[in-house]
Amino acid sequence: MRYRPAMQLYDYLPSGNSYKVRWVAAQLGLRYDHIDVDIHAGETQSKDFLALNPAGQIPLLILDDGRTLAESNAIIRYLADGSDLVPTDPYDHAKMLQWQFWEQYRHEPAIAVARFIRNYAHDTRSHELAALMPRGHAALAVMEAHLRHHDWFVGAQCSLADVSLYAYTHVAEEGGFDLSQYSALQTWLARFSAQANHIVITAKPNDLAWSCVGTS
Amino acid sequence: MRYRPAMQLYDYLPSGNSYKVRWVAAQLGLRYDHIDVDIHAGETQSKDFLALNPAGQIPLLILDDGRTLAESNAIIRYLADGSDLVPTDPYDHAKMLQWQFWEQYRHEPAIAVARFIRNYAHDTRSHELAALMPRGHAALAVMEAHLRHHDWFVGAQCSLADVSLYAYTHVAEEGGFDLSQYSALQTWLARFSAQANHIVITAKPNDLAWSCVGTS
Ligand SMILES: N[C@@H](CCC(=O)N[C@@H](CS)C(=O)NCC(=O)O)C(=O)O
Ligand SMILES: N[C@@H](CCC(=O)N[C@@H](CS)C(=O)NCC(=O)O)C(=O)O
Repeated sequence: MRYRPAMQLYDYLPSGNSYKVRWVAAQLGLRYDHIDVDIHAGETQSKDFLALNPAGQIPLLILDDGRTLAESNAIIRYLADGSDLVPTDPYDHAKMLQWQFWEQYRHEPAIAVARFIRNYAHDTRSHELAALMPRGHAALAVMEAHLRHHDWFVGAQCSLADVSLYAYTHVAEEGGFDLSQYSALQTWLARFSAQANHIVITAKPNDLAWSCVGTS
Repeated sequence: MRYRPAMQLYDYLPSGNSYKVRWVAAQLGLRYDHIDVDIHAGETQSKDFLALNPAGQIPLLILDDGRTLAESNAIIRYLADGSDLVPTDPYDHAKMLQWQFWEQYRHEPAIAVARFIRNYAHDTRSHELAALMPRGHAALAVMEAHLRHHDWFVGAQCSLADVSLYAYTHVAEEGGFDLSQYSALQTWLARFSAQANHIVITAKPNDLAWSCVGTS
């Protein structure tokens, strides 16, 4: 029996970006070692952490051989390589990336930031909300328009595009976004969370069978 | 001889995001029909354009069969599928995506926006520059640190990660970023532009052999 070092995930449980990684790992039954990073205490800006990820952010994945991978949407692409979550048709594949780049460019910077401000930085940053709210609603409206005619963002099944968009959409109400006006979007949220092996964003790593380092 | 409709690119020449697409098409000898969109006159927000791209932005690619593709980094991934610009090793592939997501999340929103403000919106938006400049320099410093030890962003040759990062880095001085302090970055810019079939951002579509719709 050979000791096999596990992958390590530098993580912060309330983070939607990290949740994408935890969700995909749970879907695929992947094991990893979980390292909690206190982003509020500046741990992502420490010298040690910056040596691992110069961008100073979680999620960060360390592979078994020590190589690093950052950016939630790149990490889940790596983990899900060859699975049903990644369309093989070239156009569908590109369309998945389109939604994921859009998520990072137009959705997350509005919805995740509004949620962060309302949860943790209301005293210092609430003046930013006036600009963020209409941007977030514009993003939700783009999703709603798509979902009125489609069950999933790409093709006929759940792909990484859905994972990336679910992460912060399903907690958008914490950012002050009333989702009741987006009915197709709500149906999609329910469709997503009804999938086998779904985990919730608050699932603690020690609730998860695959969270411990093991031997093989 | 059968008429073959060309791909169409909705484009705006000074746009670095559109330039990524033009650059990859030139590298690979791909033909397309070029449609100039005046973003300053609000053409991206017209009813007709929003029907094609609900995100209301260029670049937008229309395939031969009428299907649409938005987001610069998704478009170039589609066009370059199977070429040397896309690493096949799963880790290298994910690392390419890491840099491209980072570009859209941390680099473009600072450097491209500062450039836009200085070029077109100095009177109305210059108060944003104070926050954008340090963010842009932080992104340039991350690139510089990587390039001190590597010729390219992923592996031993130019990939789409380099294309995505070159687009706004090589015009960062228009955004007020002094690049003289980033020597490895400057060497990389020169290495990038020395490649065969390189085109400059201002190359007009009618200077380009592959810009006209043709028969085949
Ligand atoms: N584009 C990155 C964003 C990651 C991100 O925003 N991480 C936040 C937590 S959700 C973080 O690490 N914040 C702490 C910091 O910036 O120092 C991704 O998709 O992974
Ligand atoms: N994330 C998009 C950004 C595209 C973008 O910012 N497009 C700008 C020009 S560079 C645009 O269309 N602006 C007009 C508008 O927003 O209405 C991409 O990478 O393609």
